[in-house]
Amino acid sequence: MGERNTADQGLVLLERDARGVATVTLNDAKRFNALGQEMLAALQQVLDTLAQDAQLRVVVLAGSGKAFCAGHNLKEMSAHPELAWYQQLFAQCSRVMLSIQNLPVPVIARVHGMATAAGCQLVAQCDLAVASTEASFATSGINYGLFCSTPSVPLVRNLPIKQAMEMLLTGDFIDAQTAQAQGLVNRVVAAPSLDVELDKLVTAILQKPQTAVRMGKAMLYRQREMGLEAAYQLAGQTMALNMMDADAQEGAQAFAEKRLPAWRHQS
Amino acid sequence: MGERNTADQGLVLLERDARGVATVTLNDAKRFNALGQEMLAALQQVLDTLAQDAQLRVVVLAGSGKAFCAGHNLKEMSAHPELAWYQQLFAQCSRVMLSIQNLPVPVIARVHGMATAAGCQLVAQCDLAVASTEASFATSGINYGLFCSTPSVPLVRNLPIKQAMEMLLTGDFIDAQTAQAQGLVNRVVAAPSLDVELDKLVTAILQKPQTAVRMGKAMLYRQREMGLEAAYQLAGQTMALNMMDADAQEGAQAFAEKRLPAWRHQS
Amino acid sequence: MGERNTADQGLVLLERDARGVATVTLNDAKRFNALGQEMLAALQQVLDTLAQDAQLRVVVLAGSGKAFCAGHNLKEMSAHPELAWYQQLFAQCSRVMLSIQNLPVPVIARVHGMATAAGCQLVAQCDLAVASTEASFATSGINYGLFCSTPSVPLVRNLPIKQAMEMLLTGDFIDAQTAQAQGLVNRVVAAPSLDVELDKLVTAILQKPQTAVRMGKAMLYRQREMGLEAAYQLAGQTMALNMMDADAQEGAQAFAEKRLPAWRHQS
Repeated sequence: MGERNTADQGLVLLERDARGVATVTLNDAKRFNALGQEMLAALQQVLDTLAQDAQLRVVVLAGSGKAFCAGHNLKEMSAHPELAWYQQLFAQCSRVMLSIQNLPVPVIARVHGMATAAGCQLVAQCDLAVASTEASFATSGINYGLFCSTPSVPLVRNLPIKQAMEMLLTGDFIDAQTAQAQGLVNRVVAAPSLDVELDKLVTAILQKPQTAVRMGKAMLYRQREMGLEAAYQLAGQTMALNMMDADAQEGAQAFAEKRLPAWRHQS
Repeated sequence: MGERNTADQGLVLLERDARGVATVTLNDAKRFNALGQEMLAALQQVLDTLAQDAQLRVVVLAGSGKAFCAGHNLKEMSAHPELAWYQQLFAQCSRVMLSIQNLPVPVIARVHGMATAAGCQLVAQCDLAVASTEASFATSGINYGLFCSTPSVPLVRNLPIKQAMEMLLTGDFIDAQTAQAQGLVNRVVAAPSLDVELDKLVTAILQKPQTAVRMGKAMLYRQREMGLEAAYQLAGQTMALNMMDADAQEGAQAFAEKRLPAWRHQS
Repeated sequence: MGERNTADQGLVLLERDARGVATVTLNDAKRFNALGQEMLAALQQVLDTLAQDAQLRVVVLAGSGKAFCAGHNLKEMSAHPELAWYQQLFAQCSRVMLSIQNLPVPVIARVHGMATAAGCQLVAQCDLAVASTEASFATSGINYGLFCSTPSVPLVRNLPIKQAMEMLLTGDFIDAQTAQAQGLVNRVVAAPSLDVELDKLVTAILQKPQTAVRMGKAMLYRQREMGLEAAYQLAGQTMALNMMDADAQEGAQAFAEKRLPAWRHQS
């Protein structure tokens, strides 16, 4: 359970269903889905494609094999001891992470196994995360002399600061329950139930009108970085525009008429 | 328990006691205290009145009937499908929310039942919240095609981001214990104990000198939006001014003399 | 257990071991290690000395006697009812707090007893904290008419806002388990195990290369105050520079060669 047999199909797999759900699978099980340059490029390409897709509703980010993602490819990094190369690598990786946040639809991490360093960062950067009890999380770069600086960016925006600092300084693993208690994942279930639980979240989002979800996600992270008054300004404007959408009009009318709303793009 | 019989007494009730405690009760049980234009106007008026009251010590925000507050009035919104009308509505609502934060005294939400959408926002925007185990919380606008954008403003300033995102995207309810664990409410008690528990918080605040409480609340939210050094500047200046207050002088002297302090405005 | 017999040895003790661990002990047990002017000056001097020490790896902040630290010296404050004096005092105290964050190595609070007001602030301002089950925490200034404004600065950067507000308004104590659940401390153990648990954290950090730890800590708090994109810029640059360090090169090579890394400054 949790593993997918996807060898020889490319570094990143993209599956889409009729509902608008795209499943993006890191597919380098031998290297625990390490985020080497090629993997990052492939992932960026998939994210760029998805960003243009008007039919897209939800993205699931998964990993093939035993691990979710082991972070950067230290072997590759060891072969390029050049500042410019590292600068390029981390810029490339950060662009992938920002693309996840900038995707117009929710991105859910499906964490079935180990998520370390930039793999843990992927989980933190996703909008939602469902983990199996077999998942574990660490910002383990420090064990190899490399403080997980870029992973720390979404980590401190998910966890309390002292817990984030402890992970970053010790490199120690936390289990899925701890990750949930500290805010890194939304739900934890036994491994055989992982896809059932994931699908509950996916289905819940599919039942909502597309415009509201897209407007909401885009607004949420922006307002979070603002002072309270500016945040209310942006949120109020967004909500007014949202109300002008036909689905929101239908929703309000359905509420007033005590019936179920009928969306334009019903799932 | 939890319900108040307050029909035909106005949309917002204001009760004050001799201690300086104002209880503001949303009083539209039939509409689950929905925040329609009239309700918002009435609430704003009460908050504006309270903001001028030098004797005010604590505000309790409560709801009559079964629910705490069901958020915006979708029926009313459905009747005004105009951008300008919605912009005005959310600006009006945001002004109410900012008025709660800008009130010079602590505002405690008394949550005896359902708090949804802008009703959940009210809880998040209050300084403190006491909930009964019968309370429940949701940002359910998304179920009607309307992402709870303005509720998301205080929500992400109360809860971890992934938990906030889950509430906003799914519209699902969380119970009072979960709300407490995630930071949305301070205390949860069985329904029959709600007012006893609330009064513990109220009394604790009444026992403190007025100036310290007022200076502290005003400083807290401002420094939270600042960088660390600026925050320390503001907090240090505030604390120095606070020490010049006669009650703080009395407090420090009482400490030095190992006796109880006697405040100017003893409760 | 937990107490140290350190009378007549100076207000702040500095012990250093061969591993680069500095233990800074507030040593005024009679006054529960209150942060009077002399104590703050002594602590600042020690922190300034440590900031210059290239061999330093970890700092432990402890208290002698029954309490960890009781915060400001109200008796001394009572004797100087002058605004300028208070402004100077809080500026002095804030400088100490900023020095803890600006120290280039991790600072761990060893909390064996009561930590109140600015004593609670010390815990919040440290990078990590280990507490005994006998520890307790309060921002109790409000009981003496003085809102804990400067303590609120790191408090709201550790705890959820409503929990922080409750501590600040009520002055009530929370126990060590609650402090851990709310993010104020990392680990809680029975009193006899406090130093064993503390040493686990210290040893974990000592096993990491010095450069990575120093670069990481300096970056973490800066990026936390930035917007997401700027945070990624800073973190990416930091990580690239970190990779150019000989220890990170060794770490990556050791990983590639499936052996343990050998750091320059092995502990």
